[in-house]
Amino acid sequence: MKKYQQLKNIFKRVSQLQYAQRILMWDEAVMMPHGAQESRANTVATLNRTIQKMIMNKKVKALIQDARLEDGLSDWDQANLNLIEKKHIRATCLPLKLTEESTKASIRCEQAWRKLRPENNWNDFLPYFEKSFRLVKEMAVRESQALGLDPYDAMLDTYSPGFNQKNIDNIFSLLKQTLPPLVQQIYSNQQTDQIQIPSGPFSIDDQKMLGLTAMKALQFDFNRGRLDVSHHPFCSGSPVDVRVTTRYDENEFITSLFGICHETGHALYEQGLPAQWLEQPVGHIDSMTMHESQSLLIEMQVCRSLPYVEYLLPLVINQFGQQPAFTVDNLYRMVTRVQPGLIRVNADEVTYPLHIILRYELEKNLMNDSLTIKDLPAAWDELMTAYLGISTKDNFENGVMQDVHWPGGAFGYFPSYTLGRLMAAQLYNQFESAHPKFNEDIKQGRFELLINWLHTHVHSSASSLPVDDLLRKVTGKPLSSESFLAHIRQRYLT
Amino acid sequence: MKKYQQLKNIFKRVSQLQYAQRILMWDEAVMMPHGAQESRANTVATLNRTIQKMIMNKKVKALIQDARLEDGLSDWDQANLNLIEKKHIRATCLPLKLTEESTKASIRCEQAWRKLRPENNWNDFLPYFEKSFRLVKEMAVRESQALGLDPYDAMLDTYSPGFNQKNIDNIFSLLKQTLPPLVQQIYSNQQTDQIQIPSGPFSIDDQKMLGLTAMKALQFDFNRGRLDVSHHPFCSGSPVDVRVTTRYDENEFITSLFGICHETGHALYEQGLPAQWLEQPVGHIDSMTMHESQSLLIEMQVCRSLPYVEYLLPLVINQFGQQPAFTVDNLYRMVTRVQPGLIRVNADEVTYPLHIILRYELEKNLMNDSLTIKDLPAAWDELMTAYLGISTKDNFENGVMQDVHWPGGAFGYFPSYTLGRLMAAQLYNQFESAHPKFNEDIKQGRFELLINWLHTHVHSSASSLPVDDLLRKVTGKPLSSESFLAHIRQRYLT
Repeated sequence: MKKYQQLKNIFKRVSQLQYAQRILMWDEAVMMPHGAQESRANTVATLNRTIQKMIMNKKVKALIQDARLEDGLSDWDQANLNLIEKKHIRATCLPLKLTEESTKASIRCEQAWRKLRPENNWNDFLPYFEKSFRLVKEMAVRESQALGLDPYDAMLDTYSPGFNQKNIDNIFSLLKQTLPPLVQQIYSNQQTDQIQIPSGPFSIDDQKMLGLTAMKALQFDFNRGRLDVSHHPFCSGSPVDVRVTTRYDENEFITSLFGICHETGHALYEQGLPAQWLEQPVGHIDSMTMHESQSLLIEMQVCRSLPYVEYLLPLVINQFGQQPAFTVDNLYRMVTRVQPGLIRVNADEVTYPLHIILRYELEKNLMNDSLTIKDLPAAWDELMTAYLGISTKDNFENGVMQDVHWPGGAFGYFPSYTLGRLMAAQLYNQFESAHPKFNEDIKQGRFELLINWLHTHVHSSASSLPVDDLLRKVTGKPLSSESFLAHIRQRYLT
Repeated sequence: MKKYQQLKNIFKRVSQLQYAQRILMWDEAVMMPHGAQESRANTVATLNRTIQKMIMNKKVKALIQDARLEDGLSDWDQANLNLIEKKHIRATCLPLKLTEESTKASIRCEQAWRKLRPENNWNDFLPYFEKSFRLVKEMAVRESQALGLDPYDAMLDTYSPGFNQKNIDNIFSLLKQTLPPLVQQIYSNQQTDQIQIPSGPFSIDDQKMLGLTAMKALQFDFNRGRLDVSHHPFCSGSPVDVRVTTRYDENEFITSLFGICHETGHALYEQGLPAQWLEQPVGHIDSMTMHESQSLLIEMQVCRSLPYVEYLLPLVINQFGQQPAFTVDNLYRMVTRVQPGLIRVNADEVTYPLHIILRYELEKNLMNDSLTIKDLPAAWDELMTAYLGISTKDNFENGVMQDVHWPGGAFGYFPSYTLGRLMAAQLYNQFESAHPKFNEDIKQGRFELLINWLHTHVHSSASSLPVDDLLRKVTGKPLSSESFLAHIRQRYLT
């Protein structure tokens, strides 16, 4: 296993530099003064270039070939070797200059987006966006050739290994048929529900305290992570140094609190990864589908449930004082309100997949050249009107410019939210059938049973199995929308 | 200039990765959760290794040789090329494994120090310290061979290029003779001064506001920097992203405030470096002597002056409210109190050089093998008793374990404080003779004249001239203790 050990040493260094890169990007979003934007973009580009050079090194190819012939490799080692090989193939097909240019263009595009989105300024944003997309697309085309995939499939494979347009089309077409009438039905049912909006302001300090309490209850380990503020919430860092972010609005606390719960789901996955594989590809999660399944399981299945609201209410009152809006019924209505809206991150779980399907279809069209970046706002408006009955004409800020993903160069990411959501429902269904009384635990703010189950059945596997194999192993079935649709009917229509 | 341009491109990337390294170390001290200590040490070690590989690359040697023959290189280019060559020689003589082991050992030693210092726990600290020193010393020995210097001179050359034991001995032996009687005289003069200690608590928020006000007045550019909290105050980052830190004690605000002024002096130097050379060795300051001259000029010459206290008083009252201790006379007495004490960072400017001379002599003895790390506490106690009349027997916390430098592997750094202090006095003397009415500006909190003068005469030169040449160019003289001793007599004995 000498050659394999050498490979492991190289990828240990790769993993360490990737950790450095993620901390630098966290710092860029959370701490960095404005004047360092250009310099930071260049630094991250150089770091990415350095990492790519290590992965594409010819020595790596030879070591992979030799390692294949070595005895004594465990299943984990084999899976690790497969992931190493795929990373080598992906890196080798990309000219260093392209990766570097693309990194810089994406960071600059995201920086421009932060400034121009609040100004609803599509025109000034367009050149950054076009450049960034052109480079990301060029990379996808090259990767698609190396991997023998369609270019958009190569993008999907980056964030959701194992998924492609064919199997996503199958799943999404069912949702596209099923959800609109469900939305209509739930929406009209809920019209008679009175909701009383809690009256603010809710100080940022108080909101932070409440968020930290929620994280602690969910078993977030603050010895290996922290909570901060950024423009767009995210979870990054490394398993021993998980960086969760949120944003606060003094007028309401629900969005930030449930955002924290969502990111905590990601964080628990990271913190639950097996310690002995942390610095190898097999110990790292490339599947954003699996990652989103963990955040959405915590946010949607657990935290937007009635028993969670029962647990939450006294904490809310303790933090903000008593007021008429603070009742279990009222808060539960708020967190399960179904209503078509403009903004994906604020969407309820029933309309949410329609936001994703919209983005998926636009990405497909951008990649097969039937749509240009310039025509994106019109195409967005058309689909929003068709799927959710809302126009976004001239509303770039809350339309095509609303998400960080495209400005940041993450094309092909969006489907992972809905695939992950279906996976969350399927996994949680399995957990619940084994632990039918777990709602009693939730009411008391006790989540150990669930977190331990996730550790055992999901987290501890890391990337040692393909996502589909893992899901079959845990739930006995391949991915489908069955559990998700059953959950929606059960939560909203019974 | 094709070959030189290639060299510049390589060192641009080096500079970018060094910026990454400094942000990671800032994060380690300011933000990072405890559980990431080991992982961060490994990551920084790998990053340092990557940087060293880039510098020691054989291609660099060939490019230097070819660039020497190219036409059209300006004086700055020539200075840059000289610095590049020196970095290449230094990097080439160190095995990568040694740099990596040394980085890890130093970070771990500093992490152990943070925990063990408050426990006064020398015994548990000793193995970390011995290992870290052994590796740092091994590096110095190798560098000394490559550079044709004595090993301790090689260390001094790292932090104070142009200085060695011979010229430092000359300067320090005069101070060692002159200062003790001065300390005695000032100390006994001040015995009749009544000092009223301001009564706290002084909230951290208030102290931070006051510190930010002081930084703003001193022209710190917050678009290119920020202020945070760390265990030990420092200034790091890059000229476009300067990270200043301090620490607060609710019982008193003077230490933190003047610490901020000190670090702001460093920060102004960084922010004043010429923009077009930021990513080249010549645009970066390797001389910690010059760097300390800038921090000490601001802290000692400007901020501990009577006119600065006159400017400060209304700000202090505005922040903390009125109280009897808040008078110009009383505050000025506090910030100019001369009294032998245990702690270097709390020392007044008259006793301070004695703290440095003590460390310098111990470092020399450690390097010439007449002293071991194990025997350091006894040697420390002996010199403290001799120079400052205070014993540190069994008091490791406030004796040999008080500073971050040795735990962090920075042997050879200490002399730069006192050399920098002398330089600060010499530079400020020159500035004052050209601007004799500047005290009136200080009273009004107007520092533009000084900061502009420093930009023009010091900052804008970056590392294009050797320190001694720069000092001669600005002040007409080589470095001596003349201005410093005149300043001490003038401030304390007239």
